[in-house]
Order: sequence, then C-alpha cells, then structure tokens
Amino acid sequence: MYIINKYSDIVIFILLGNLYGRGASDNKAPVLAWIHAVEAYQALSMDLPVNVKFVIEGMEETGSNGLDAMIMAQRDTFFSEVDYIIISDCGWLSRHPALTYGTRGNCYFFAEVEGPKQDLHSGVYGGTVIEPMTDLIGILDTLISPSGKILIPGIREAVAPLSDEEWKMYQDIQFDMDNYKDKIGVNQLMYSNKVDLLAHMWRYPTVSIHGIEGAFSDPGTKTVIPAKVTAKFSIRQVPDMDPAMVKKQVTDYLHSVFAKRKSPNKLKVTMVIGAKPWLADTHHPLYEAGKVAIKRGHSVLTGVHPKPSGISSNNNNNFLVMIMITLVFWMAVFSFPYITVSSRQRL
Amino acid sequence: MYIINKYSDIVIFILLGNLYGRGASDNKAPVLAWIHAVEAYQALSMDLPVNVKFVIEGMEETGSNGLDAMIMAQRDTFFSEVDYIIISDCGWLSRHPALTYGTRGNCYFFAEVEGPKQDLHSGVYGGTVIEPMTDLIGILDTLISPSGKILIPGIREAVAPLSDEEWKMYQDIQFDMDNYKDKIGVNQLMYSNKVDLLAHMWRYPTVSIHGIEGAFSDPGTKTVIPAKVTAKFSIRQVPDMDPAMVKKQVTDYLHSVFAKRKSPNKLKVTMVIGAKPWLADTHHPLYEAGKVAIKRGHSVLTGVHPKPSGISSNNNNNFLVMIMITLVFWMAVFSFPYITVSSRQRL
Repeated sequence: MYIINKYSDIVIFILLGNLYGRGASDNKAPVLAWIHAVEAYQALSMDLPVNVKFVIEGMEETGSNGLDAMIMAQRDTFFSEVDYIIISDCGWLSRHPALTYGTRGNCYFFAEVEGPKQDLHSGVYGGTVIEPMTDLIGILDTLISPSGKILIPGIREAVAPLSDEEWKMYQDIQFDMDNYKDKIGVNQLMYSNKVDLLAHMWRYPTVSIHGIEGAFSDPGTKTVIPAKVTAKFSIRQVPDMDPAMVKKQVTDYLHSVFAKRKSPNKLKVTMVIGAKPWLADTHHPLYEAGKVAIKRGHSVLTGVHPKPSGISSNNNNNFLVMIMITLVFWMAVFSFPYITVSSRQRL
Repeated sequence: MYIINKYSDIVIFILLGNLYGRGASDNKAPVLAWIHAVEAYQALSMDLPVNVKFVIEGMEETGSNGLDAMIMAQRDTFFSEVDYIIISDCGWLSRHPALTYGTRGNCYFFAEVEGPKQDLHSGVYGGTVIEPMTDLIGILDTLISPSGKILIPGIREAVAPLSDEEWKMYQDIQFDMDNYKDKIGVNQLMYSNKVDLLAHMWRYPTVSIHGIEGAFSDPGTKTVIPAKVTAKFSIRQVPDMDPAMVKKQVTDYLHSVFAKRKSPNKLKVTMVIGAKPWLADTHHPLYEAGKVAIKRGHSVLTGVHPKPSGISSNNNNNFLVMIMITLVFWMAVFSFPYITVSSRQRL
C-alpha cells in the first residue's frame, strides 16, 4: 500500500472492508487487486503460472506525457517477452461483472474566433464591433440539436445503423436506468429507453462542448468584450468513423456556418486529438480466459455464475495506450474491469 | 506625483512631455491636471476663485466597494458645502475636445443552467445526458443576431427611434471611422456609416456576452461535461429603458426559449447589476462654463476654437457614482474629459 499511496494527496482508509480515498476506484484498487493476486501465490508458496510485469503510471488525468515514449523505448527490453497486456482501468455497467471489449475514440477540436486586437470595454465599444464571442456562440449552437442530434453533415451517416442482432444484444444487457439517473443526479436522460441510451453511450458518435478559453470565466462580473475566444468541443468516435474525415467534416461545416454570418472576425478550426475507437476480438484466448475467470471468481464470491456482458466503455488515455500497444506490438490487450457502477469517481 | 504613484504597480515616466505608464490616461493624468490647476494658482500667488476638494479613489476596476458608503457617510461633512462635482474619467471621441453629457447604464445578467449533480466524463456519459453547456449555448444564441439585432422582445421597442434632429447632430459630429477601426484592429464594424455606428454606440441598447463560468476555460484539453454553467452577459441601457422592465423581458424570454428545448436541466436567470443611463442637462451653468473653458484652453493651445461636441460615452463605476451623487445630493455633476481617442487604455 505504501508505494501506491506515496504520491496520493489524500490518505486511503479501510472501513468495513471497503477502500475509501481519492482515486480508490480509479485506479488504486484495480492495481492492488493484481498485486494481491501475486501476493496470494507467494503466501501459498505456489509458483505463478505466468511471468507478471507491472507498469504503474499515475499521470493519466494530465495526459500521461512520456508514457508512449517510455513504452517505445522499452520495446525490446522490458516488453520483449510480453505476450499479453491487461489494463484494469474501466468499469462494470451494472452490479454484474462485465468485460470491456471496445472504447470510443475522440476527436477534440479547438474553434478559435479572433476579432479586435485586444479586449475591449463593452461600455465603450459594445454595439460598434462584431463580437467574437457572439460569433462563437452562434457556430457552437449549430453542432447539436436540443434532442442530441449531431447537425454536422456526414458524421451520423458514416456509422452503420443498429442491426436487429445488436438491438437484441443491447436489449439483453442488464442496465438499470433509474439507478443510472440517480447516480448522475438527473431526472431525465437523453433517451428514455435502454437500447437507445446504450447505443448512444457506445456505438453512436456524440458531441460535448467542454468550455471556452479567452472569455471571462471567473466568478463575479466583468464588462469585457473578449478579443479572441476558443471553444473546446469533442466528438466521440465509434467504428466506421475516420478521424481524418471527421476533421474535414467539422472544419468545412463550421467554416460554412461562419461564412453565413458575414463576420469580419477570423475563424480557425483545429483538431488537437484524433483518436480512433478501439475494438478487441472477444474470441481471442485472452478474452475467453477472462470470461472463465470472472465466472469462477463470482461463483466463489456470490454463488452464481453471471454471464459477463461484453460492453464498450469509456475512452481515456489508457485506452489510447492500449491501441498504441496493439499497433506497435501486435499483442492482445485485455481490459479487465474491477469497478462496479456504484463506485464514485471524480475527474 | 508621489501620492498618485504610491499604489501603482508600474512606474510612470515622462518622455518628450508625454506621460507613459499603466493607468496614465485612465486615470492618473486627468487627476493630475486638476491638481496642477490648483498648483498653478498657488505658484502665481493667486487666490482660487472657488474652494476645491479632491476625492481620489483607485478601486474602480474592482467595483469601488465602499465608495458609495463613504460618500453617504460624508454627506453632511466633507460634501456639505459642495455645489458642483466634476469627474474626469471619460474620453474624447476624436482629436477634438468633447464634453460628456450622458452615459449608458448596464443590466448585467447571470444565466445559470444546472444539470447533473457533478461534472461528468464525456467519454463515459457523453450521449446519455442532456448537457447544461449545450443548453446554455442554445439560449445565448437567441440573444442577438449576427448583424447585431437584439432578439429579446421589447428591448429595442422601448427606445425612441432616431429623430431627424438627432440624425443631423450625429452627422455633424467629427468622427473618423477608419481611425476607429485601426484603433480596435478590425477591418469591418457593426455598421458601415457614421450615424448608425454612433447611434449604436450611444443611444441604442447593445448586448455583449462576456463569458461562461463553470466550464473548462484553461488552455489545453479536458474531456469534461460541466454540471453547472453560468453565462455572463450585459445589456447597455439608454434613455427610455427601465432596468426592472429589462430584467423581466430578459428573464421571461430566456425561460421561454429554454422551455422549447424540453431540457430536464434547470435555468436560473439573475440580474446582478441594474444601472440606469445617466443624462446631464447640457444647458446647466456648469456645462456652459465647461464649454467656455474648453474653447479658451484649446484656443491657447492650438490657436483654433473647436466646437465641443456633446457626446454620451462609456459606462463605468464612476458614472454610477455620478448618478448616485446626483440622486443623493441633487448636485450638478459635470464630466470633463482629458483623454483623446488615441490614448491606449487597458482593462
């Protein structure tokens, strides 16, 4: 525990067998679980059936800068005899165990509107200049409809419609919408039925607007006309989407809606992240072994044999690393979640 | 100079007779000018024709907290024998001297959209929740058209149209549009003719969107779905407008456009500043004296007798104080600008 806690800002404590503390579920507990597995073999004086190497990295939330370079550098040394990689940074959908076999990619955009050469006082200049902030709000409002429909031509069309087989699979997945609503703290979700909701969580692209840089974002009031404002928004990528194509679709579209405004301000659209979705082969021996392990483990713990539901879950930097490892080493990467839906995580 | 510089963060220096330094034009130089006038009388061993009291306050940009209370507290002491008040915190429109006889007021709004109980990860929740940021962008986009037309019903209608007499007055005002564009650093203004531009600078209401609190506003990327976002925007007030009415118009309108989105999120609209416009009587003896003084001063300096153009200029906290002084003491307040259009000010 010491090593894992060494760089933590908040102490972890154990209460009635549960682990509490910042980062307990994301991702100290899953890391500990693997260490405990090795410890169990040691305590029983048994030989491990496989050789185990750990890579523990704690900078995911700030971009894991240097991780990819480290992996590349260790390709022929630390990683040289590695056959399989397991990452445990994902969660179950419900209280039933689940395996993650895919993750959405992410195209992250900056849309910058630049106008006057410096910030202006709205009391003096308001009404005389065409404000970059008004322009930016105007084009952001054309990205997505109130009901969640992406308005950028071509984005939605690139993705195959839900097949009957998929519909059936989604319908069979155990998922409690009320529990999900309670967890988030909303009384209405984007879709009111399970299949639509899960499909938009996993297999359709989505748009999120994260914020605006350059405008007044502090508490209180300031009567400024910001001279240059940059919106940050992202489109989650799913199979059939090509980030290069999405970049062109978004850029062309925003420039076309901006042109209609006839504004003298300048628009610059940049795609700063272009990550493809990741999809594993669920029939790979690693996944088959994972299914058996989960069934056996939960049989011992709960006395039942739950069916692992294969889900595609969140995108994060670890998944980017998984994709990279897959591409670089052509090794099977397996995502083995330990986190239940009820665990509380903070960004 | 010592007293004025004591609290300044950047040293003022004099080069070829010009004063350089942070706050030189706003507002150390105008303050110094009045002090020098008194010094001139003293140097010439002449009695001042009037008694002069100075109120120097340096916290305007952070709201001048306490200034109004101080003025009220000094009503029967420091201010008891004051007949006229002169404030020199405004500017000329061009290189010709000008007197300010009015200022726009300001209704400053917070529009808060609240959704999930905490920020969410767009990789996990994107597509399942109706995001407060999307809702906020949607309603902000209904405030003003790309061409500057205020879309809130009743706002524009409350203001009297430009009369022929006003049109003539605006047409006669010396104002160089190219110089103005250069100063701001834009190649196109909201209106391409002088009268429209000046009218929207002074006598029509305008909307500015200042920024959004609660969303991601730092450099770089963050894949957050903000749970609660608050937009800051303001509407400059002009004669015929009533802040109480504007509050109702804006609140009703935003709630009506928000209702059309059928969002489960909560909207709260608050007017945090409701300042009326200020308009002086330009035939008051104080203004007549000001006109004579400007004519005489510039005659001496430049050899010409420019006609002071009466303008209504910016709104700032000093003007709020002027309004308050007018209301409390019923004293004539006179705004006497020293700052030319070419001076560079920073917010």
